[in-house]
Amino acid sequence: MSDEKIYTAAMIVIGSEILSGRTQDENVQYLAQKLTDKGVRLQEVRVVPDVELAIIEAVQTLRSKYDYVFTSGGIGPTHDDITSVTLAKAFSVPIEQNEEAYEILRAYYGEVALTDARLKMAQIPHGALLIPNPVSSAPGFQIENVYVMAGVPKIMQAMVDYVVAAISGGALLMSQTVFCTVYESEIAEDLERLQHKYPEVDIGSYPHYTPNGSGINVVLRAINERQLIDAVEDVQRIVQLLERKK
Amino acid sequence: MSDEKIYTAAMIVIGSEILSGRTQDENVQYLAQKLTDKGVRLQEVRVVPDVELAIIEAVQTLRSKYDYVFTSGGIGPTHDDITSVTLAKAFSVPIEQNEEAYEILRAYYGEVALTDARLKMAQIPHGALLIPNPVSSAPGFQIENVYVMAGVPKIMQAMVDYVVAAISGGALLMSQTVFCTVYESEIAEDLERLQHKYPEVDIGSYPHYTPNGSGINVVLRAINERQLIDAVEDVQRIVQLLERKK
Repeated sequence: MSDEKIYTAAMIVIGSEILSGRTQDENVQYLAQKLTDKGVRLQEVRVVPDVELAIIEAVQTLRSKYDYVFTSGGIGPTHDDITSVTLAKAFSVPIEQNEEAYEILRAYYGEVALTDARLKMAQIPHGALLIPNPVSSAPGFQIENVYVMAGVPKIMQAMVDYVVAAISGGALLMSQTVFCTVYESEIAEDLERLQHKYPEVDIGSYPHYTPNGSGINVVLRAINERQLIDAVEDVQRIVQLLERKK
Repeated sequence: MSDEKIYTAAMIVIGSEILSGRTQDENVQYLAQKLTDKGVRLQEVRVVPDVELAIIEAVQTLRSKYDYVFTSGGIGPTHDDITSVTLAKAFSVPIEQNEEAYEILRAYYGEVALTDARLKMAQIPHGALLIPNPVSSAPGFQIENVYVMAGVPKIMQAMVDYVVAAISGGALLMSQTVFCTVYESEIAEDLERLQHKYPEVDIGSYPHYTPNGSGINVVLRAINERQLIDAVEDVQRIVQLLERKK
């Protein structure tokens, strides 16, 4: 199972409103969790403004580096929604009215209310496949290894569910967390030793501070279940010893 | 005032736990808001794993492209905290025990409890200036135009406040929001016309869906206050007309 292909991914959040601090992004964590559950490694996220050059540069760099690229944002009807036309430029293909998208929008809005602004949402790069939008109809799309999705979390989440179900996943990464009330600096040397002992297990330490006190979560992740279980038991033994000393 | 220098910035979130979906980032929005209030334009955010090559590449690319680069995460005492040593490599300077950092840690932990793991937090790239940590003492640091801060939100926020107060800001961007209950597609053409009428005003449209119905926030941002006020009044007139039609 360890030699199964590892699939990698990047995400591009297209949104000046995230960079100005107006909006708290919720899409990164949603996609990250779904990809992790699928076995796909999210390796990088970039947040870029609604600016053509910035989007093109991110798409081209990341799609040659990773198996999948997911974007969120900028596919609505207003002038600042430039993702679709920009993606067509990035792939050097024409942008055109997609007949399937047109029919979807016509069914949703009706012939009369299908204004020019709404019709803009049927403009899709040539050769792209549509990603359904069960919330408000206007679709996302896939072009080669790039999946273009809405920024509104409810719509984005539905699109992620659809896309992640369809892609290849690869070897699952199992994860276990050991919580303890010691300080990071008390357990740091033991964790470093364990990291050397179990090179196939990714051991991370995440402190958290609450009004009720502080502690750390030791998160262990591995494809190899036997190694993971052994490493978790070692961490638990160390934590017991340290907590008993207090 | 329009010809005052515009300062730009990027942020690097160093954290495998964000990419796995385990943790919801809170640091981007905090920094983004503080920079916006200061007049500094946050142009790009990258989330990278706790991996040397990924950190070095992001630091080198972004610090040559923007005036300021801010990093969060990876400066704690455990083996997966590799930010400080990696930054030294990125700047081709030695990593060394910083005497000021050593004294700060000694005062906080006391001589006896100053273990090797804790002493690791006094290892700072040569030539860097310290950024105080009022929460748990271990400092961040500044090296040239890169500001290296903790990932724990409470500590990160204190460091951001300190750093943002110290840097040059530049021309402030003023912002106004008009809320309306029309659909984006109903107002899209008017907004596009206004964007052409007021090229110095950045007009963005952000839909939101709640259980009580949907609407959009039209956000207008500009350095030129007169243009901003005129554009806001135009948007308000259009919104009134559209809402009256309903």
